[in-house]
Amino acid sequence: MALDIGPAHGREALAKLAEEQVDHRFKGLPPDAHGLTVAELADQRRNLFTGGFTTPVLALSAERLEHNLRLMETYSARHGLAFAPHGKTSMAPQLFHRQIEHGAWGITLAVPHQVRVARAFGVQRVFLANELVDAAALRRLSAELDADPDFRFVCYVDSVRGAGLMDAALTQAGATRPVDVVVELAAGEGARTGVRTEEECAAVADAVAGARSLRLVGVAGYEGEVPDADPEKVHAWLRRLVALAVDFDKAGRFAAAGLDEIVVSAGGSAWFDAVADVFAGIPALSLPVLKLLRSGAYVSHDDGHYRELTPFNRVPEEGALEPAFRLWSQVVSRPSPEQAFTNAGKRDAAYDLHLPFAQVVRRDGVERPATGIEVTGLSDQHAWLRTTGEADLEVGDWLGTGLSHPCTSFDKWQLIPLAEADGTVVDYIRTFF
Amino acid sequence: MALDIGPAHGREALAKLAEEQVDHRFKGLPPDAHGLTVAELADQRRNLFTGGFTTPVLALSAERLEHNLRLMETYSARHGLAFAPHGKTSMAPQLFHRQIEHGAWGITLAVPHQVRVARAFGVQRVFLANELVDAAALRRLSAELDADPDFRFVCYVDSVRGAGLMDAALTQAGATRPVDVVVELAAGEGARTGVRTEEECAAVADAVAGARSLRLVGVAGYEGEVPDADPEKVHAWLRRLVALAVDFDKAGRFAAAGLDEIVVSAGGSAWFDAVADVFAGIPALSLPVLKLLRSGAYVSHDDGHYRELTPFNRVPEEGALEPAFRLWSQVVSRPSPEQAFTNAGKRDAAYDLHLPFAQVVRRDGVERPATGIEVTGLSDQHAWLRTTGEADLEVGDWLGTGLSHPCTSFDKWQLIPLAEADGTVVDYIRTFF
Repeated sequence: MALDIGPAHGREALAKLAEEQVDHRFKGLPPDAHGLTVAELADQRRNLFTGGFTTPVLALSAERLEHNLRLMETYSARHGLAFAPHGKTSMAPQLFHRQIEHGAWGITLAVPHQVRVARAFGVQRVFLANELVDAAALRRLSAELDADPDFRFVCYVDSVRGAGLMDAALTQAGATRPVDVVVELAAGEGARTGVRTEEECAAVADAVAGARSLRLVGVAGYEGEVPDADPEKVHAWLRRLVALAVDFDKAGRFAAAGLDEIVVSAGGSAWFDAVADVFAGIPALSLPVLKLLRSGAYVSHDDGHYRELTPFNRVPEEGALEPAFRLWSQVVSRPSPEQAFTNAGKRDAAYDLHLPFAQVVRRDGVERPATGIEVTGLSDQHAWLRTTGEADLEVGDWLGTGLSHPCTSFDKWQLIPLAEADGTVVDYIRTFF
Repeated sequence: MALDIGPAHGREALAKLAEEQVDHRFKGLPPDAHGLTVAELADQRRNLFTGGFTTPVLALSAERLEHNLRLMETYSARHGLAFAPHGKTSMAPQLFHRQIEHGAWGITLAVPHQVRVARAFGVQRVFLANELVDAAALRRLSAELDADPDFRFVCYVDSVRGAGLMDAALTQAGATRPVDVVVELAAGEGARTGVRTEEECAAVADAVAGARSLRLVGVAGYEGEVPDADPEKVHAWLRRLVALAVDFDKAGRFAAAGLDEIVVSAGGSAWFDAVADVFAGIPALSLPVLKLLRSGAYVSHDDGHYRELTPFNRVPEEGALEPAFRLWSQVVSRPSPEQAFTNAGKRDAAYDLHLPFAQVVRRDGVERPATGIEVTGLSDQHAWLRTTGEADLEVGDWLGTGLSHPCTSFDKWQLIPLAEADGTVVDYIRTFF
């Protein structure tokens, strides 16, 4: 099996993205650019508003993206955290590499397909925030680990049965290099995945110790699922996680041959301030500790869910993320003074946490606030707008909307214009969902 | 500009789909198939359950798809309806062509990007169920109409301003062949797009008559948006639509040079029985009438929304659609007797109308009903399951779920295994969203 992995292959794959042809696969791009390569189109530096782009079109702000990348780089460094931003958010190898250039240790992912994407583009350190019991995916993983000694991979294990299934599949695959695992501690009763009690964690760790093809390298969890989360409860759970690492270390569970650091990992996009607080107090263990933060939504941030939940609201002195997406659609119907419809729907906008937020209207090159305009619903291919008497909105106008939830915004677009503040599109971001 | 359109180009583009490489772009496929072409993988006739596919993976039933294609073909023929199934549902050119082979007149679409996809694969008759006022898209459309005399295109117009914007953009593009439009009648006050009153419809028709680059060819609408719909209200609205066509015809509005038929179009997936009823009563007009039904969801049907709403529930003697999707995911965590988690989330399953429905569990090659198992939520990459004491579910098990809403099921998968009842995957369906 040709694996097509490793840094050199990754650089080549990344370069090839620029040579992809602009065609029917990618929505929103200028029809008269079809047949150009992505690089050729980027070199034309077309304007988003006058360069022939068709609606709906999602734009990512070049400046805001850069700001967010820098902010989490400095934040992580200031707090002594290694950073493995969750790549499921964007699934964009170009952004994975920009995150790594901005100091990230590696990339967190959720499922084997996502690992495949990251590996195809040369990502050498992957944290899979899930138990992995799929025999076919484990065969592939094992082949990659054996073929590429520089490939660092860590995943969750949260059950004795899971450890057993992994070991069986890896043994059958003839794995020579063990798979590094961390025991996942659940965020509480009724929370998502993860082992519910410290006693069960020890049993899972025992199962790992008894598995020929697994190596225990730490503990991890996701504080974002703490039930009825508040700062106190989140801190308390993070302290449980750290205590688990300490207990495991005292019990000699990290004494495996060749292990040179202990992984302690947590951190979504709502509580990384608490993670920074509690991880700052991790005591000295028998090996250096890799304190791994996994926040992913910061890369584009948003105008809804994460705008409300971002830890920077609690620590404004440490900075502020900037919402980097704007979805442009066009008014195609204005059937009454109270109603209007644009051509962006569920296929184009995140809708799982909030509806899009009407922000600005453009007509004849003039942009103004979307006064009196509210998005009240989405069909598959339409946005429903309610308008008050204040609204000046006509068929043909472009409506700029903010979105809520980066993960379900990225996943509706396969090639996203990266636009500067004046509308100049300087690059295109390819996603793989 | 090379347009890359027309039937010969379309056949070639369709053939090229089979030559695409199986790689990181496509989730769920066997890792050891990477590097094969789609045709080579299809020729291997792998089994969905034993052939190395990774979870989550969405499968489309080959037999059920074929059944649904045949059923709507016979239904349309029996009722004297031309059929332009809504292609936004699948955005799969292979399915567009199977629909056309099964008697469809053409394909309905919602936005210019979707037209671009259909045209790239040789679809020669397109009904765009939206007003189109995007200048860049109209330039492209006009170039295609002028380059390909066999390209038949019809779109909505629902405002005087819209007609004016279209005419201006087409005139500026130097269009020589007029764009065929139908006046869209709204489904009622507060409904979606469309002209609200017959008086306004006449004004829009006047605007079209005065537009050099437009030609009025009929009337259309979408009964699926009738407020508080019931059979009586839907019938009443459809009779309004037919009366509008009759009035327009009497007023000589379809007397444009070269016009050889009048288009009357309606029909989503919830009320096509009413459309068949009312359209059967369209009186003789000055030209033959193309009675165009646009239902799209039938192609995969579903286990939720359309299972409840399908007109075949009212006319079972005319047949029954079969839900053709099953999403397979794997249990990755079983943290308590009441909870389990699989690795399929919002990225994989439709969630806008219902959550997935737990149907069957597979372990060691044995499939049994998913007794005592309910999907209670979706994270981005996880399904939350509630289990009762009856449930026999362990880490590693595959869970087969039914989905609700074909449109938001197709759009999460770019290459979908087409599997026979015994699990043999006989082809792969490529989508373009």
